[in-house]
Amino acid sequence: MAFSGAEYTTDCSCPHTLQCLRALPEKLWCRLVKVSKIAMKFGEDHPRRLIHSFKVGVALVLISILHHFRPSFYAFGDNIMWAVLTVVVVLEFSVGLNRMLATFLAGALGVGAHCLANLSGDKGEAVLTPIFIFLIAGTVTLMRFSPRFKVRYDYGMIIFILTFCLVSLSDEKESEMLEIAHERLLTIIIGSCIAVMVCICICPVWAGQDLHNEISSNIEKLALFFEGFSDEYFNNSDTTQTVQDKSFLHRYKSVLSSKSSEETMAVLARWEPCHGKFKFHHPWKQYLKIGNQTRVCAYKIEALSSYLLHSKQIPHEIQSMIQESCTIISLECGKTLKESSLGVRHMTKSSMPNQHVANAKNAVESLKSVLRTNPWEGGDYVDIIEVAAVASLLIDVVDCTQKICEEIDELASLARFVPSQLLHQGTVQPISKRDDSIHVITIDEITPRLYE
Amino acid sequence: MAFSGAEYTTDCSCPHTLQCLRALPEKLWCRLVKVSKIAMKFGEDHPRRLIHSFKVGVALVLISILHHFRPSFYAFGDNIMWAVLTVVVVLEFSVGLNRMLATFLAGALGVGAHCLANLSGDKGEAVLTPIFIFLIAGTVTLMRFSPRFKVRYDYGMIIFILTFCLVSLSDEKESEMLEIAHERLLTIIIGSCIAVMVCICICPVWAGQDLHNEISSNIEKLALFFEGFSDEYFNNSDTTQTVQDKSFLHRYKSVLSSKSSEETMAVLARWEPCHGKFKFHHPWKQYLKIGNQTRVCAYKIEALSSYLLHSKQIPHEIQSMIQESCTIISLECGKTLKESSLGVRHMTKSSMPNQHVANAKNAVESLKSVLRTNPWEGGDYVDIIEVAAVASLLIDVVDCTQKICEEIDELASLARFVPSQLLHQGTVQPISKRDDSIHVITIDEITPRLYE
Repeated sequence: MAFSGAEYTTDCSCPHTLQCLRALPEKLWCRLVKVSKIAMKFGEDHPRRLIHSFKVGVALVLISILHHFRPSFYAFGDNIMWAVLTVVVVLEFSVGLNRMLATFLAGALGVGAHCLANLSGDKGEAVLTPIFIFLIAGTVTLMRFSPRFKVRYDYGMIIFILTFCLVSLSDEKESEMLEIAHERLLTIIIGSCIAVMVCICICPVWAGQDLHNEISSNIEKLALFFEGFSDEYFNNSDTTQTVQDKSFLHRYKSVLSSKSSEETMAVLARWEPCHGKFKFHHPWKQYLKIGNQTRVCAYKIEALSSYLLHSKQIPHEIQSMIQESCTIISLECGKTLKESSLGVRHMTKSSMPNQHVANAKNAVESLKSVLRTNPWEGGDYVDIIEVAAVASLLIDVVDCTQKICEEIDELASLARFVPSQLLHQGTVQPISKRDDSIHVITIDEITPRLYE
Repeated sequence: MAFSGAEYTTDCSCPHTLQCLRALPEKLWCRLVKVSKIAMKFGEDHPRRLIHSFKVGVALVLISILHHFRPSFYAFGDNIMWAVLTVVVVLEFSVGLNRMLATFLAGALGVGAHCLANLSGDKGEAVLTPIFIFLIAGTVTLMRFSPRFKVRYDYGMIIFILTFCLVSLSDEKESEMLEIAHERLLTIIIGSCIAVMVCICICPVWAGQDLHNEISSNIEKLALFFEGFSDEYFNNSDTTQTVQDKSFLHRYKSVLSSKSSEETMAVLARWEPCHGKFKFHHPWKQYLKIGNQTRVCAYKIEALSSYLLHSKQIPHEIQSMIQESCTIISLECGKTLKESSLGVRHMTKSSMPNQHVANAKNAVESLKSVLRTNPWEGGDYVDIIEVAAVASLLIDVVDCTQKICEEIDELASLARFVPSQLLHQGTVQPISKRDDSIHVITIDEITPRLYE
């Protein structure tokens, strides 16, 4: 956008300059409309990001209003810089008290370090200050590389370097120094408070909640694949659409590369205060274990999905030998994962997933007994190996699914999930004897929806 | 580290305070030694990160020296803040001119925006400034979410918000404003120049070079797997080690989750000036395509590797039917990938990988003809499907390998790689007729080493 001026100037040769200048507002208007349309589209696609931008605006306006009215307890003056810097740096997408803590700590430490340097007299200070700056800035920069520090304290460490350098390089005398340091800390505290208030009060974004939802929706994506796989592979599906058109067969792909975002969210989540259903010390690390098992399963799916592409070329009589057991395995794995995903989402414990795993294991046994009868005698082995590979991968998938369930059970016991039947606890009113009509109690299966 | 004080205070009950205080220096020293040991270890593991920290230190010391001597052309004064901020923010790990450009642009735009707001008189400004701040800060924050802007201009945009807010909130009159703006811009320019000079002159880290090396080493990791796979699967390998012990069978795992880091490096690489073997407009996007194909191949390897774990339980007579062709396929794929990786690393074009792909394809044909003879008659199909799955996956792998080669050929033509024989160009001295000794010219195969 910023570079767009170039196209107007290159178009205009001397005789047409006036004409060009007249057309300029119109062109600029067109461009503005185009940009706003893109922004509107972006806002519709990512409402939470739009809200975050709104929050940053609000926080800065709050500071500008404070600055304008100059409350008696503190006049910002030249230190307004620090309040603005704090808001810009502390107010990140998700709620995180760690950044505020780091900011306080860094500010206080910076002042302390300067006081130490000040003790060595005028000349000593001129030599010591660069050495201190070099050592401290170098060390803190090195610490920024540590993944553990990076996510938690990155901004805090930038603030630390800044504060330290500025305080060291300031020309003020020691008595003024302390006053400046005091004012600066107060400014940082006010800035942090405004940032955190806005962060928590206006539509807060919780990294923990996001991680929780992502894990649950990733498991559901795998479930969608298994539910659609058998129909697709054994030619029972709608043949007007190709494999590429069917989105449920491709949603698992985003799971393949979900590792880094899950890890970041888990670190952020540990620094959030209690919120919603998540107590203090919620077992966020267990989510990562579930995520790892989900990815292992997704890699198997990636291998399976390549067999979908030429499933139509394989003679039906070869496929049909294993169709029944494979269909059951695939559907039961799908059900297991769907139930598990639902359990994670609603934080309930249920025995349903384990029952479906047991069904899938029975189907594996019946598949093996079919295989022992030498079903493909006389067939073309070039086709047979493909079908065999699908059978073999499906047998593996049952193990993966079971491991996902085990990790979820572990989470359920660590985070004390409620048994699912308790959710529907209640008393059934006895029907009076005079009432002769028939009462039917229907228990609907809860159908989960994919999280946005 | 910063919180470690707590453990000393909680240990000390009143009667032992003096004793505790005496032990304090010793405890502190122990902790210091421990921390330095960790730092030393870190520096040994990541020498480039250590150098980067050194560079940040040097840049800040340069500014403190400039500030101390106050050169006639410019006295930093209160604006020292901006030079420090610029260095901390601009001096990132890799060389990138984009950050300097964005910093300049944002500084200039911030001043311009304030001049506009100034035109509306005193009262108008009090109302307009918060509105402007809200609009601009909100918009820029929204822009920070766009992945395209995020990587290129993130720090520039933070500086933009900061500059804009500070200039808008400053109490100076317009004539002073321009002078401040001028001084601030000059400070930012000096800061940027120092940052960029240090970045380029002291052991520069080029994201492009990193991407180039990573792509090449990832392909080599796949090659290592294929070279070891057949020996491992067909029980020819050293049986004292388990599959878990053999690192060459697991190195491919890092390729599975390499997507995001490759994408980040590719975006950064496009903003670097020419360096080393990389000209302006080097086709960085093509590296991403190679990376995608490499990952597809790694997913197949992940599926293959699960069959290694119980390969020992499968009767040898079932495996032996396909052993010869599968061994050739696996070894030829390994050679293809090794040659390709070497070609990418040295930026040379060679016909060797395509020859190995052709060999692998011949082996696939002979595998298929073995399969057509119904080799496993009377065997247990539960074992047979596993071997069949391996055969089927290996056939798929040849396609993947070929696709990697095609993408590398595309890169070779886009980036004008040198034909590999030209590298060894030279003249062979004719041997004088009187010399009767036999001369042997050995042409060693170049064995590539895994990049650190």
